[in-house]
Amino acid sequence: MKYDYLIVGAGLSGSVLAERIASQLNKKVLVIDKKDHIAGHCYDYAHESGIMIHKFGPHIFHTNIKKVWDYLSKFTKWHLYFHRVLAVVEGKKVPVPFNLNSIYLLFPKKYAEKLEDLLIKNFGYGIKIPILKLKNNSNPEINFLADYIYKNVFLGYTLKQWDLKPEELDFTVTSRVPVYISRDDRYFQDTYQGIPLKGYAELVKNILNHKNITILLNTHYSKLPTDINYKKIIFTGPIDEFFDYKHGELPYRSLRFEYDEIRKSYFQEVAQVNYPNNYDFTRITEFKHFLDTESDLTVIAKEFSEEYKIGLNDPYYPIPRKENDEIYLKYKQEAEKQKNKVIFVGRLADYKYYNMDQTVAVALTVFEKNIGKK
Amino acid sequence: MKYDYLIVGAGLSGSVLAERIASQLNKKVLVIDKKDHIAGHCYDYAHESGIMIHKFGPHIFHTNIKKVWDYLSKFTKWHLYFHRVLAVVEGKKVPVPFNLNSIYLLFPKKYAEKLEDLLIKNFGYGIKIPILKLKNNSNPEINFLADYIYKNVFLGYTLKQWDLKPEELDFTVTSRVPVYISRDDRYFQDTYQGIPLKGYAELVKNILNHKNITILLNTHYSKLPTDINYKKIIFTGPIDEFFDYKHGELPYRSLRFEYDEIRKSYFQEVAQVNYPNNYDFTRITEFKHFLDTESDLTVIAKEFSEEYKIGLNDPYYPIPRKENDEIYLKYKQEAEKQKNKVIFVGRLADYKYYNMDQTVAVALTVFEKNIGKK
Repeated sequence: MKYDYLIVGAGLSGSVLAERIASQLNKKVLVIDKKDHIAGHCYDYAHESGIMIHKFGPHIFHTNIKKVWDYLSKFTKWHLYFHRVLAVVEGKKVPVPFNLNSIYLLFPKKYAEKLEDLLIKNFGYGIKIPILKLKNNSNPEINFLADYIYKNVFLGYTLKQWDLKPEELDFTVTSRVPVYISRDDRYFQDTYQGIPLKGYAELVKNILNHKNITILLNTHYSKLPTDINYKKIIFTGPIDEFFDYKHGELPYRSLRFEYDEIRKSYFQEVAQVNYPNNYDFTRITEFKHFLDTESDLTVIAKEFSEEYKIGLNDPYYPIPRKENDEIYLKYKQEAEKQKNKVIFVGRLADYKYYNMDQTVAVALTVFEKNIGKK
Repeated sequence: MKYDYLIVGAGLSGSVLAERIASQLNKKVLVIDKKDHIAGHCYDYAHESGIMIHKFGPHIFHTNIKKVWDYLSKFTKWHLYFHRVLAVVEGKKVPVPFNLNSIYLLFPKKYAEKLEDLLIKNFGYGIKIPILKLKNNSNPEINFLADYIYKNVFLGYTLKQWDLKPEELDFTVTSRVPVYISRDDRYFQDTYQGIPLKGYAELVKNILNHKNITILLNTHYSKLPTDINYKKIIFTGPIDEFFDYKHGELPYRSLRFEYDEIRKSYFQEVAQVNYPNNYDFTRITEFKHFLDTESDLTVIAKEFSEEYKIGLNDPYYPIPRKENDEIYLKYKQEAEKQKNKVIFVGRLADYKYYNMDQTVAVALTVFEKNIGKK
């Protein structure tokens, strides 16, 4: 069999590129994945109750990039949804990102009013501040608050999630969840937010549904049948694996889920409750909130973060630290040498902590700049 | 019948040690208990409504010791639960440990604000202070508050519970329930907190479920059938009983419960309401809160503290006082002489007011240090 492109990985990156190449260039694409399903870590499936389970942890689509939203909207309708997250602090469930409502829920009213005044005076209303920046503030009351938030919201969660302290990670990581001087309880403030109405696997199935695209599951790229020919590879797997770990292993965090079915209509108020201070799991996801599914029972998953070990579990999150970026740069230089034969794209190949919308944006850009115009 | 170990008492200490010896050393263990059930004072059973009743008073598992949590988690799933206790003071139900919320519920707002300010200024937010320490503070307003809390929250309760004034007990006893400059209404701040999903008896049943473990109930160690042989004894009963009270009786407090079934869904807001100032019972437990059981009726128990009398009731709490520790030390010296034949472990044998997690931790440590490595 002859193909123009072999795409390794049927996740978002691979699927978007396959679709572009098939529909815009009318070329033949073979998409392979070593797993038994498409959609990579977005993969979801219906529980017998009808609740869609996100197999690899909660996925909430959100973006400010209209082009990405419009692109995906060709393949799915959306359930309009704003993600809200509560964190258990001192036994109370308070909004995260930590905001003015969180302050009022945790502190005595008079004290909360004082802290609110100070924050608005010092930073302004509606402002987001990374916790490590807030911690550096010299005002003693703001400093007390920053220490409190650091200790009760960030420290334990980061230790569980990354096995590192907040300061040991790239500044961008804790900046993802800033302190928000606002009463907006949403986790994201993006213009476009939602859950694919029939799930992510269905969305990716629609993206891949083109006569020029062939899909082979359960197929590792090193074990492709020899009668398969292709001109170029798009590789969306771990870049270190591609180069046989010659510059060392790139570290990732992995996840493990413990599922429970509970015989009541709801287990918690929102889809996601974080436990920065209690227990070993980082958070509990209750899936029925995402699509507002009606059912007598509910399904939850406790999420445990763990070290990625090649062959034993899946790589989820690249770990954004300088020393890891340095290893990645060596692989990137190797990749440069191969650029006429192999294109590297995606969270694992770029070793970047992309959100879904960034993943799609990068794939669309790679197509436009490096593939489509040739 | 031949056994390697005879374990006297099928409570937490005895059961954990039986499991370790059976599973790690592959030795034969006979566990006996004079009662007709396992699990000692953790024992619980299902009421016809499905509500689990803690027969020997409310048991809430809480620990900061990950090793203990992980060990027990091999034998049970957990209902995630934060214990909250209210105390009836001046007819109002206020959070205990006494905290800033309690102050606002009891005092006029302006006065409460002043006291709050003073406490935060003098000790800091989020700080726990033993009542006897707060009473020694020289600031007259703090002193007034300390006297108020002492009189309304500690004195009556301690008199009922121990038949002693707070000052007459070891400092550790009143320090267990400090004054908490916080709005955290939880009774415990431990990392791991919960109730075994199917109850404590089921948990202990699972711990004891091993082919090397035999259980004999309704069996006092002094009346063991003569054809039973064993090499070593682990004794988890009262140490003074073991030595025939030769150095005098160790005093314990005992409890008595009056149960009521009430034809409404809930009797009180939380599982436990304390009555430091009214009535003769110390507290009322409403059991359905523990596992969030759904039922039309509810079951409560009024709890009365009383003197332990050998043969008439059960020993519950060792009484932590210097003069009792001195008696205990005499027994401990006797125990030392027997240490190649008999190992003493647990709340009653160590004459220590252990929480459940400490009990498990001590049993695991005794196994590791004194039994496993031989």
